[in-house]
Amino acid sequence: MSANSSLDRMDNDDLEAVLRADDATATSFLRLLPHPADVVESLRAVEIAQWPRLLRLVADEAERAEAVALLEEPERQALLILLDPGEIGELVKNLETDDATDVIEDLDPQEQREALQSLAPAERAQVEELLQFAPDTAGGLMQTELAGVRKAQTVQDAIARVRELVEQDIAVHFVYVVDDDERLVGAIDVAHLLVHRGDKSVTQIMEPPVAKVTPDVDQEQVAGLFKKYSIVSLPVVDREGRLLGRILHDDVIHVVSEEAEEDALKQAGTSAEELLYRDRVLPIARVRLPWLITTLLGSLISASLIAFFSGVIAQAVVLAAFVPVITAMGGNVGTQSATILTRGLATGRVSLTDLARILFREFRVGLVMGAVCGVVVGGAGTFLFGDGNPVLGLIVFLAMLAAMTAAATVGALAPAAMKRVGVDPAIASGPFVTTANDIVGIVIYMSTALAFLDLLKTP
Amino acid sequence: MSANSSLDRMDNDDLEAVLRADDATATSFLRLLPHPADVVESLRAVEIAQWPRLLRLVADEAERAEAVALLEEPERQALLILLDPGEIGELVKNLETDDATDVIEDLDPQEQREALQSLAPAERAQVEELLQFAPDTAGGLMQTELAGVRKAQTVQDAIARVRELVEQDIAVHFVYVVDDDERLVGAIDVAHLLVHRGDKSVTQIMEPPVAKVTPDVDQEQVAGLFKKYSIVSLPVVDREGRLLGRILHDDVIHVVSEEAEEDALKQAGTSAEELLYRDRVLPIARVRLPWLITTLLGSLISASLIAFFSGVIAQAVVLAAFVPVITAMGGNVGTQSATILTRGLATGRVSLTDLARILFREFRVGLVMGAVCGVVVGGAGTFLFGDGNPVLGLIVFLAMLAAMTAAATVGALAPAAMKRVGVDPAIASGPFVTTANDIVGIVIYMSTALAFLDLLKTP
Repeated sequence: MSANSSLDRMDNDDLEAVLRADDATATSFLRLLPHPADVVESLRAVEIAQWPRLLRLVADEAERAEAVALLEEPERQALLILLDPGEIGELVKNLETDDATDVIEDLDPQEQREALQSLAPAERAQVEELLQFAPDTAGGLMQTELAGVRKAQTVQDAIARVRELVEQDIAVHFVYVVDDDERLVGAIDVAHLLVHRGDKSVTQIMEPPVAKVTPDVDQEQVAGLFKKYSIVSLPVVDREGRLLGRILHDDVIHVVSEEAEEDALKQAGTSAEELLYRDRVLPIARVRLPWLITTLLGSLISASLIAFFSGVIAQAVVLAAFVPVITAMGGNVGTQSATILTRGLATGRVSLTDLARILFREFRVGLVMGAVCGVVVGGAGTFLFGDGNPVLGLIVFLAMLAAMTAAATVGALAPAAMKRVGVDPAIASGPFVTTANDIVGIVIYMSTALAFLDLLKTP
Repeated sequence: MSANSSLDRMDNDDLEAVLRADDATATSFLRLLPHPADVVESLRAVEIAQWPRLLRLVADEAERAEAVALLEEPERQALLILLDPGEIGELVKNLETDDATDVIEDLDPQEQREALQSLAPAERAQVEELLQFAPDTAGGLMQTELAGVRKAQTVQDAIARVRELVEQDIAVHFVYVVDDDERLVGAIDVAHLLVHRGDKSVTQIMEPPVAKVTPDVDQEQVAGLFKKYSIVSLPVVDREGRLLGRILHDDVIHVVSEEAEEDALKQAGTSAEELLYRDRVLPIARVRLPWLITTLLGSLISASLIAFFSGVIAQAVVLAAFVPVITAMGGNVGTQSATILTRGLATGRVSLTDLARILFREFRVGLVMGAVCGVVVGGAGTFLFGDGNPVLGLIVFLAMLAAMTAAATVGALAPAAMKRVGVDPAIASGPFVTTANDIVGIVIYMSTALAFLDLLKTP
């Protein structure tokens, strides 16, 4: 389906065999790859220790540098440790300013100085400025390469500026127009330059920029603007509106998908770091264990509660059977509410000012669902586990109703509270919600059982 | 930060008040919005019943149609039910072919015929052809509007073609070059047209297309190509390589984010449908309940197992305290393995041919983590819950070790099995893995307890 010939037809084992073969074989293979992204895909088939050797076999310097720019953050960090300073300097020289900044950021201070030395003075000044912005902000994503013209210039001037960039192999989608104080006043789609006479003023054909950001804006908000306005390029301006750089769509796609990947892994209590270890068991276990130990300590709180109520269970052991049912359902309904609120906060559909309304809604939804699930579990308690005696059924019905209502409310409250204190709700709410709901569910269930204990013991 | 003046400073309550006010107020507000995406954001502040009225207040027909195109699938379906056929015809007329197809797809057969009637014959034929492709494929995403030239034509001809599209307000990033049989042979970046002499042949400046797809390719693969190759436009060709249409980056961004949203909601057992119901409790509960009931039935299996072993628990009630610890940790470690495998399958980092290797790795990782968590829980069992008697600690240590090892293996196996039978691993593996691991964990724990029961009872 795609335009790639060689890669699509090979599985990982074949690929690994070719790349681990002698240099001549690997070089001929790498030369067949039509795009630096294919080089990256090939690298991923072998372990990182092999990457420096393979990259050296990529003949074209620009392609090699582009491949390094396309790596994901932890991959690039691991690779740079294996390269010598001369090679890093060569790489940085062949990258656009945003990618050069990303590479230099991963180096230690001594290596940073050496890499900066390898740049031409003008580019070095730009990269040094970009290094001051946090990597997860608009400033960290932007590049200084862009097509800018002044208000007094003409369509012909704008075309000349585009030509300069095209000759340096830099993508141009928009020409930005600035006033005499360098303030951004308009944007011209490159295709529109083809439509107008060369002596027209750029101000006659420019349009106000659909969106712009200051360098401190968070990368998630940047991604939101690209999505909302369907743009390919976003200008970055300082507080006075002066044009500093631009962010291109492809950098944002990578940010969004790396973030989604990292979020999915973090929610499961691991991280992209483990992908670097391939089959090395101990480092992988080390990445996953901290979260497991945390949730283990949380579940020991539940265990203590059950031990505290062991007198109740001793008098009707069948009660123990429903502990995992109550805690599982509290966890499930809490996850539903937490997910709805987390997604709502992330997409801007919900704001913290709506919180009271949403909590009340989740409370009522939890009540309805708790009633339905309570009837099911109450029926099971009466007929499957209680030999027709309705007391166990009544206990689990009431406990399920109360626990699910509480869990829905806690599930909605937790991400809102996380957001308020500045923690990412997507990552933090999972184990927190589950542990909180386990505790609430067990206390509710055991208290209900205690209240009806005399009835339960009577046959 | 963004270029929007009015929207950014309002909260949802203010927005709702303005939009629910008289038509004159709402119209003046809507006129201030710089982009159809802002109209969509405003619509979302009020309930869908209000949308037809507000859309009618948007004076510009193209802007109104564009706003409808930007709605998410379930929103658009709900809106179209409220519009009359004449309005739908007007909308469709103002949309590009891919968006018109999306709208018409949401209509019933009679309305579809009426909407198609409102199109000019040439456009109608194109939309009828696009309607034949499944919405979640490259064919369902593509539009027939594009800049195409023949091999024999010149740069000047390509510029003339771009001009035609710009005058119809259609975005152009690449001009596609076809041979006499309409087969795609190259692509030219619009910016490059500015650099070359008008009498040059397009074949002299074209490059081979970085990627192309046939219409049957799944939209996730399409999104993967946009991400991998950092492209803004992807040509779609038939099996003979003839150019059929193109897919633009903004459609893909929407697909990716709608899918990520829908996946996150489905994993929590709900769906985007509930977002339409705002605060209506019963319909929301109806959306969430099927998944909850399914997981409830799963947890009743666990309950039956515990009831089956109630004789064991009756002899040492403290055993009950560790049931949620063992099941929670099995669930957690299973989720980690399932997530790693699901993400690996989704990104292509892992293929089913690697399965044996990965299962063995997860088995060993589970063993290491089970040993560590087993020591912690064994310590707790001995000193916190067992008054220094090591038998309870030994039982929970062994059970944790075995249950976590099994859970890691099951967690990796489940998404692979789902993938093999064609079910989306991201959605299906959650409850399946949790229920399976609960069962395995309880059986392991209770069997271990049974084996050491005599020691445990002796004080």
